Amino acid sequence: MGLGQISAGLYSNNKFLNIERFPVVGLHKNYSYDNLVTDSAAGATAFSCGVKSYNGAIGVDHDTIPVKTILEDASDQGFRTGLVASCSIVHATPGSFGAHNRKRANKEEIAADMVDCGADLIIGGGKSYFDRRTIDDRNLYTELRALGYQVSDYFEQDFQDLDVSKMGDKWAYFTADKEPLSKEAGRDYLIPASEVAIDYMSKTSKGNGFFLMIEGSQIDWAGHANNFPYLISEMLEYDQVIKRALDFAEKDGNTLVILTADHETGGLAIGNGSTHDEIIPAWTSDYHTGTMIPVFAYGPGSESFAGIYENTAIYDKMMAALQLKKDFGKENK
Amino acid sequence: MGLGQISAGLYSNNKFLNIERFPVVGLHKNYSYDNLVTDSAAGATAFSCGVKSYNGAIGVDHDTIPVKTILEDASDQGFRTGLVASCSIVHATPGSFGAHNRKRANKEEIAADMVDCGADLIIGGGKSYFDRRTIDDRNLYTELRALGYQVSDYFEQDFQDLDVSKMGDKWAYFTADKEPLSKEAGRDYLIPASEVAIDYMSKTSKGNGFFLMIEGSQIDWAGHANNFPYLISEMLEYDQVIKRALDFAEKDGNTLVILTADHETGGLAIGNGSTHDEIIPAWTSDYHTGTMIPVFAYGPGSESFAGIYENTAIYDKMMAALQLKKDFGKENK
Repeated sequence: MGLGQISAGLYSNNKFLNIERFPVVGLHKNYSYDNLVTDSAAGATAFSCGVKSYNGAIGVDHDTIPVKTILEDASDQGFRTGLVASCSIVHATPGSFGAHNRKRANKEEIAADMVDCGADLIIGGGKSYFDRRTIDDRNLYTELRALGYQVSDYFEQDFQDLDVSKMGDKWAYFTADKEPLSKEAGRDYLIPASEVAIDYMSKTSKGNGFFLMIEGSQIDWAGHANNFPYLISEMLEYDQVIKRALDFAEKDGNTLVILTADHETGGLAIGNGSTHDEIIPAWTSDYHTGTMIPVFAYGPGSESFAGIYENTAIYDKMMAALQLKKDFGKENK
Repeated sequence: MGLGQISAGLYSNNKFLNIERFPVVGLHKNYSYDNLVTDSAAGATAFSCGVKSYNGAIGVDHDTIPVKTILEDASDQGFRTGLVASCSIVHATPGSFGAHNRKRANKEEIAADMVDCGADLIIGGGKSYFDRRTIDDRNLYTELRALGYQVSDYFEQDFQDLDVSKMGDKWAYFTADKEPLSKEAGRDYLIPASEVAIDYMSKTSKGNGFFLMIEGSQIDWAGHANNFPYLISEMLEYDQVIKRALDFAEKDGNTLVILTADHETGGLAIGNGSTHDEIIPAWTSDYHTGTMIPVFAYGPGSESFAGIYENTAIYDKMMAALQLKKDFGKENK
């Protein structure tokens, strides 16, 4: 989600997005260790671990050494933690917060890591990587339950039919066997799941704080497809997630909300010939670009997100805002 | 100059630009009154007059009514004022700060307006619109001199050979008959002219303050040409202008520096396949795009430039920072 995507969302929505409510803007340099144009794995690993790694790296440095993630440190240091995504939960972005693998394609290995990453809440696709594995005989549903998780999925009940009030200390809900549908094709859980996640995190953290990562995953996929209606539907859905986060933070008064992306996809511009009534999208590519990415922040500590900095600095700023200590001792899991 | 151009400059310069020294970042919505994709005239009129006008408008509102510019108000209210550009001084951006015309193409009319706009310093191309006019018999060199300007041009002497210390209260220097050369083709005045202008404005304002607009005009033209080496040479030259402005402001302590652009040109992205050693530019167009534009600010009042806002708000924020009163009475000149 680059500046083109944000502009497209804005101009497709009567020139307003909730993104405008963020008082602080920054820009990050998102190149990876081995490539000027990052992928989502290296991009998310920069946010989750504070290191520039190679494209494809999930929570490991450029020598493939695991680096403890901010979610793992937050969990160990008394925060409630959660991951919500509109892709599978083992996909590059959520995966990089809860797993360590040399290769993003190793989805079943990433799933196994997610089981004991310490996240108290997991909502996303990828059921089959947990309950019908091909690389081993483990049933990660059983393992999650043994660790105290309540586990459910789209096959058993719709997200909207879950009785969240009865959720215990940890829970996982799988929204698809592999990747969830697009919003256009009927996926409708991201907004309610975000609302529920914020409420659950807030209540169960009992004033001790929480770390929650919510990804609007398919903004990127719409860029790969150069599909403008797909992009706009994903953008406007995600803007409603942002609304929920900002509404909560405004009321709470002690929550930092950060919005950014790992990279832009498609080289999208609001093309020449666009009018106040119709956008003509102009794409340069069906892959990622290396253009800098906007960062938005609201709340205590938000000032530190102004200016231009490396993508890894977002990790540093988040760690500082949560007053977390990096646990180097557990890097080599 | 959009985020693609800034990223390209950065990654072409060992990943550093002086732009990174700005602590405050914002984004502006730059659509014009009649078009989602603005041109430079409407874009600059939004900055100079605080109104959304139609593409082609120079210092006039959407009904073609002249609107007093911030430079004119600043001049009337005791500030020293100046314009420096690497295009002709009657081109859309500098023109919109010192002239009022229904059509950007009316360059000789715009030149006549510039004569009495109140600018104490003018450096840019466009000599022939002043001294060899076709629409009338006026010689604007003579008129400028009658108003107390010292007038010189590239034909008489190189900019570097001017004895700036002997410049009086007002001066104008024309750098080309019409449009100046590109940096690549030998234009070399923008950096020294910016240095001299800052120094001259500072000294002659005697502590009462100044308003100076410096445009790196040909970043846009490189985009129209989809010419990447041209773009980079213009970007890196302009970054040196920014360096001079920030160095001065840091030392002075009471100067607000604002950096932005009216629009992006070319739909430039850092394309897939780019490496740490080589950028592969990806263009979508040879014209402007409608993507939002970054704003950077340093100094007293810079905080107000954070967030997302209309391009016209940049005028409001500048007026507030200078504590200027808008003179509505003189709108209809």
